[in-house]
Amino acid sequence: MKLAQLGEFGLIDRIKARVAASPFVPLGIGDDAAALLPTPGTVTLITSDMLLDGVHFDLSFCDPRSLGRKSLSVNLSDLAAMGAVPRQFLLSIALPGEISLEFLDDFMAGVMEQADRFGVTLVGGDTCASRGGLVISITALGEQRPERVVKRSGASPGDLICLSGSVGDAAAGLNELRRGVREGYLVSRQLDPQPRVEAGVALATAGVAGAMIDVSDGALADLTHICELSRVGARLDLARLPLTEEYLASCGADPYALALSGGEDYELLFTVPRGSESEMRAIFAGLGLRVSVIGEIVAEEGVELVTAEGGVYTPALRGFEHF
Amino acid sequence: MKLAQLGEFGLIDRIKARVAASPFVPLGIGDDAAALLPTPGTVTLITSDMLLDGVHFDLSFCDPRSLGRKSLSVNLSDLAAMGAVPRQFLLSIALPGEISLEFLDDFMAGVMEQADRFGVTLVGGDTCASRGGLVISITALGEQRPERVVKRSGASPGDLICLSGSVGDAAAGLNELRRGVREGYLVSRQLDPQPRVEAGVALATAGVAGAMIDVSDGALADLTHICELSRVGARLDLARLPLTEEYLASCGADPYALALSGGEDYELLFTVPRGSESEMRAIFAGLGLRVSVIGEIVAEEGVELVTAEGGVYTPALRGFEHF
Repeated sequence: MKLAQLGEFGLIDRIKARVAASPFVPLGIGDDAAALLPTPGTVTLITSDMLLDGVHFDLSFCDPRSLGRKSLSVNLSDLAAMGAVPRQFLLSIALPGEISLEFLDDFMAGVMEQADRFGVTLVGGDTCASRGGLVISITALGEQRPERVVKRSGASPGDLICLSGSVGDAAAGLNELRRGVREGYLVSRQLDPQPRVEAGVALATAGVAGAMIDVSDGALADLTHICELSRVGARLDLARLPLTEEYLASCGADPYALALSGGEDYELLFTVPRGSESEMRAIFAGLGLRVSVIGEIVAEEGVELVTAEGGVYTPALRGFEHF
Repeated sequence: MKLAQLGEFGLIDRIKARVAASPFVPLGIGDDAAALLPTPGTVTLITSDMLLDGVHFDLSFCDPRSLGRKSLSVNLSDLAAMGAVPRQFLLSIALPGEISLEFLDDFMAGVMEQADRFGVTLVGGDTCASRGGLVISITALGEQRPERVVKRSGASPGDLICLSGSVGDAAAGLNELRRGVREGYLVSRQLDPQPRVEAGVALATAGVAGAMIDVSDGALADLTHICELSRVGARLDLARLPLTEEYLASCGADPYALALSGGEDYELLFTVPRGSESEMRAIFAGLGLRVSVIGEIVAEEGVELVTAEGGVYTPALRGFEHF
């Protein structure tokens, strides 16, 4: 069957059939708007990301199922960075004529697989024909008690700067894809990043994180966002940056360049007061997830990058910016 | 100044500067996600619409300010159809290289003008470069007490079928635009529809509407949605369809074709029990808005279209459907 035979309403019915009931969604897909039931005492956290063919992804080297997972993951990562428990999402998609129903089914299978994994319910969106490329727009919602929400602005001098997982892998994976490599650890980090939802929620619930952000623009750019909004500076020990063997084998002569500037790792970059380090480490140990202390928040504004030898490093690349 | 000089973060700062504080938004633009404060005892209503150049609008005949207003209006109309009080929205926009900063400023002025008029706060979204055409994706949120939310499924046999304003104008306006007309009542109904927010909220608050939908796909298609979800049928008196003089002068030989199938009027189509007619009429009189009773819900499924002479009318056109 082709998309044109299925039609817009047929497509919506096909998607709706895959959505499970949720106590947080008294009224789902099928009306002019969905109704969501907020948990009393919480605020609703909401974020939106748009992904375009040729800008955020390349259909020549991403499979539709991974693309579906990633489209939701990048939004769940934003919620994780606030410490929000994810609940619902909306998906709008503009489909060019050459997209097959098979592609769309695989894409939706990826979206729903990730939705099931993180317990979020599809509650609406929009579908339309595109005369340009494929466009995916997702809005995701979560909730948290207001006093537990972690902002970018909560870093204080003396706080430790911490990072989950490793950085640089996704950017190195993109370089591999551009060189024709189609599989392996680095490629999977680029095509199928895993949002750190459990870690973000656990840090928020325990109240140990001062400031938090997800690494989407690059570790240096994202640390700079925290510093600017917290009106503080940072001292980063480059020797403590969590880099994988795969990354080091792929990154070329300067191991810090891509690790600092390459985006899309979707790790959590956060600060904790020095006295909360062991509690923070216990959370990550419980999740079986690597965490590294990579520096310290300082009063003086600006981010200082210190090499293993104690020198100052000047990055060659900046984080990603549109336009 | 050009968009490239302003940059992504400059653009976000420029937009953020126009957003006023709201008690419903404890944390707005600038973090990984915004925090929204739901009113205790309400459910959150949420809807999303995507608009693409060449599909939903034509940059050769819509001015950016009206496009900004309309982009928000179509979402507010969905909330109105549920009886929700609108509160917040997110705006994602993909900008092709040829879009000027002036265009973008005018577009945002239109968005914010409509936002101010209806008391909704911009809380987030996404901006990126587009290699295809302009893409606009808006998600809007509102709230209502759960027992006051009006669904499509609440119509019962014997209920009156009611319609705010008039229908067919927006579709006739599109035809005029395609013929080179650039102003006048019909054109403004196409380019700058006004969502019936006050009417939708008043009907829901008074508890008089059984089922409600906004007329976006065309009156016949939208009435069919109500009937299917309510498992009822309808008998529509074509002579009672609210048609304007401007529409009648423009629509050609068959006045019913576009009035039934032309979408984008963004009027409210709703049902009320016969005993609530005078209360419903008092609401519209108070708002200074035209309302018409155009037919009756019946038990037998299907929509019957009855002409002034008592004959059965068969529509030549269907409502709009993508793909």
